[in-house]
Amino acid sequence: MERQRYKIAILGGTGAQGGGLALRLAVAGHAVSIGSRDAARARTAAAELAARVGKAIAGADNRAAAAAAEIAVLTVPYAAQRATVEEVLAELEGKILIDATVPLVPPKVGVVQLPEGRSAVAAIQALAGQNVRVVSAFQNVSAQHLGDLAHPVDCDVLVCGDDRVACDTVIALAADIGLSGLYAGVLANSAAAEALTSVIITINRRYKVPGGAGIRITGIPESG
Amino acid sequence: MERQRYKIAILGGTGAQGGGLALRLAVAGHAVSIGSRDAARARTAAAELAARVGKAIAGADNRAAAAAAEIAVLTVPYAAQRATVEEVLAELEGKILIDATVPLVPPKVGVVQLPEGRSAVAAIQALAGQNVRVVSAFQNVSAQHLGDLAHPVDCDVLVCGDDRVACDTVIALAADIGLSGLYAGVLANSAAAEALTSVIITINRRYKVPGGAGIRITGIPESG
Repeated sequence: MERQRYKIAILGGTGAQGGGLALRLAVAGHAVSIGSRDAARARTAAAELAARVGKAIAGADNRAAAAAAEIAVLTVPYAAQRATVEEVLAELEGKILIDATVPLVPPKVGVVQLPEGRSAVAAIQALAGQNVRVVSAFQNVSAQHLGDLAHPVDCDVLVCGDDRVACDTVIALAADIGLSGLYAGVLANSAAAEALTSVIITINRRYKVPGGAGIRITGIPESG
Repeated sequence: MERQRYKIAILGGTGAQGGGLALRLAVAGHAVSIGSRDAARARTAAAELAARVGKAIAGADNRAAAAAAEIAVLTVPYAAQRATVEEVLAELEGKILIDATVPLVPPKVGVVQLPEGRSAVAAIQALAGQNVRVVSAFQNVSAQHLGDLAHPVDCDVLVCGDDRVACDTVIALAADIGLSGLYAGVLANSAAAEALTSVIITINRRYKVPGGAGIRITGIPESG
């Protein structure tokens, strides 16, 4: 399959997770823009990221970034998830929205606290409706490792979504940045990835994991 | 730390998951008994397992098996989880109950369907009260790999519980059978391991994984 290059907006891209994804996607040849509530902050963050990798990275407010993109990635804190999607919703019609949100509820971020027993992303799909192709991914990837471009990230990416073609696109994007993405089922299955992040936080503390733990799925045949 | 040998009852041990755990725990030197609703079935299964490994393995009804054991392991289908615990509850006072139950809801076992947004084991702790030391573990370990004694199992064990000493005991038991157990947080965090099993089932189907996939947590320091 020919590698596709996309215009990708990282909404909440001024954070560590979004910044790390932006860096690696830019290196892989995608046209990356950073979105933030504050356009000036987005431009500053974009310039810093661009300087690190010698690639053009744009900055804009979330809505403008989403409007200009073919694919949007949501990397905001859980508390800002819904408001951010509401803000950009009109710009996402027919597009893929990759939601990396984890429903961490401070201060107990190491305790699984799924919203009403469902995944956080399920609420976003319900909000966005069927014209936005929502895919859940990247919840378990350490921001620190993502930002450390000298090393590959030792973590698989669980990719969940009700749109299988959109899931395949996200799996290809993960491959572009050196990550093995695995189709992990319908969007509701994102509950596993979201819950796992609190487990990883607990393990990071208990075992003093440098840079943060990750997950691997074992047993996948090479030709998988 | 000196390796301890325990009397361990596998409740629902006539199934594949329980049988695999029984085999490996017996090989490791523990005194294993198989529990079942039907004592005759338990004895038959125990004799077959014992013959495979050349170790004594007892069989009894669930209640008698629990009464004679120091540690009980629950490996029944989700639909039988609550009734089985109710049946043996009086025998578990002060003991460790390792719950391996996954809330799979047929026919869609590849879809995460956590009970009311909580873990299945949380309901068991609520039922059992504070005098039973409930620990969640082994949800993600393939029964087929467990039963294949010629090969190590390529899967980590997420161990969740509110009693940290009991969790350490379960981590040591996992080590006895060649599995790396990791403290994964409070009992509520079992939601991650339980949800992950549906993801693994989906991955097994999608990627045609021989014997079943597993998980590894990456980044743990060797001395961890």
